[in-house]
Amino acid sequence: MDYTEKKVRRLNEYQGVIVHVSLDEVELPDGQHTVREVCRHPGGVAVVALDGEGCIYCVRQYRYPFDRHVTEIPAGKLDVGEDPLLCAQRELSEETGLTADHWESLGYLLVSPGISTEKLYLYLATQLHQGSAHPDEGEYLDVLRLPFATLYRQVIDGEVSDGKTVAAVLKAACMSELGKKFT
Amino acid sequence: MDYTEKKVRRLNEYQGVIVHVSLDEVELPDGQHTVREVCRHPGGVAVVALDGEGCIYCVRQYRYPFDRHVTEIPAGKLDVGEDPLLCAQRELSEETGLTADHWESLGYLLVSPGISTEKLYLYLATQLHQGSAHPDEGEYLDVLRLPFATLYRQVIDGEVSDGKTVAAVLKAACMSELGKKFT
Repeated sequence: MDYTEKKVRRLNEYQGVIVHVSLDEVELPDGQHTVREVCRHPGGVAVVALDGEGCIYCVRQYRYPFDRHVTEIPAGKLDVGEDPLLCAQRELSEETGLTADHWESLGYLLVSPGISTEKLYLYLATQLHQGSAHPDEGEYLDVLRLPFATLYRQVIDGEVSDGKTVAAVLKAACMSELGKKFT
Repeated sequence: MDYTEKKVRRLNEYQGVIVHVSLDEVELPDGQHTVREVCRHPGGVAVVALDGEGCIYCVRQYRYPFDRHVTEIPAGKLDVGEDPLLCAQRELSEETGLTADHWESLGYLLVSPGISTEKLYLYLATQLHQGSAHPDEGEYLDVLRLPFATLYRQVIDGEVSDGKTVAAVLKAACMSELGKKFT
């Protein structure tokens, strides 16, 4: 039974800096009304950057929502109208200084589809070259280089729990020949 | 370099139905000030429910933020103070009618740690018994039962893109003996 919910009217909204929230009254298939809250998010990218020695690059940074440091693969938000692959190349370079000769899509994630429009594009970047990082102002991060097999083990053990990192590392491990080789 | 960001003052906030958003002015390690926006979310659970024949249960439902139907593993939000395992048992029963004799943690995910406090607990439920589903009012969903290997393939192919489903299915496939057996 594929149906849609029809917006009746907007009840409330909030214009944030990154997220815009709207609260809509909607009509359900049976004619009843309910409310749906939506966080509008620009979406983003995340990159599994794997070098020829089977090492992956991560960033470790303070995350204000959890008041602690979190280990994640390089990632960032899409600028308005930006192509996801160009965004991935930009973010990888900004955060780690790396460029890559080979890019492969690992698909995308609907990050929290019940409440948010956030869509996150995943990439595998290989044949890496080191340049110099140039993070955004106010962005403090440490770049880590570690064996892919070690990060894979940290994901399985729950030591690494960032959602995009879990999904992207396991997808790379399961679907890419390189990922399979290095786990 | 493990540091924290110090809240200076709250600039704005929005009290939504599910999500509360706050905008804080914070002090960075170098003394400069910037803003951090945070969506406060109650967190939730998601369940890989696997029966003795190697089949997994999914739900397919309309998701208003994307204006389309999305295939996901059974999941739901934590009530205030609710134990994640009890929440997982409640949500699995509400959405699919299933109860399970065996529950195993698959860890948790930080769903979008740059912007949201959402933390999602993952479980593997086995030794299933079928009862009758009783979804929340206004919750329309179709329950699907399909071979775990089929869903695994759909995750790898990108046909299934819900973040929690991708992460949980791949974790189950990589870390559980049952998951390995059925891929």
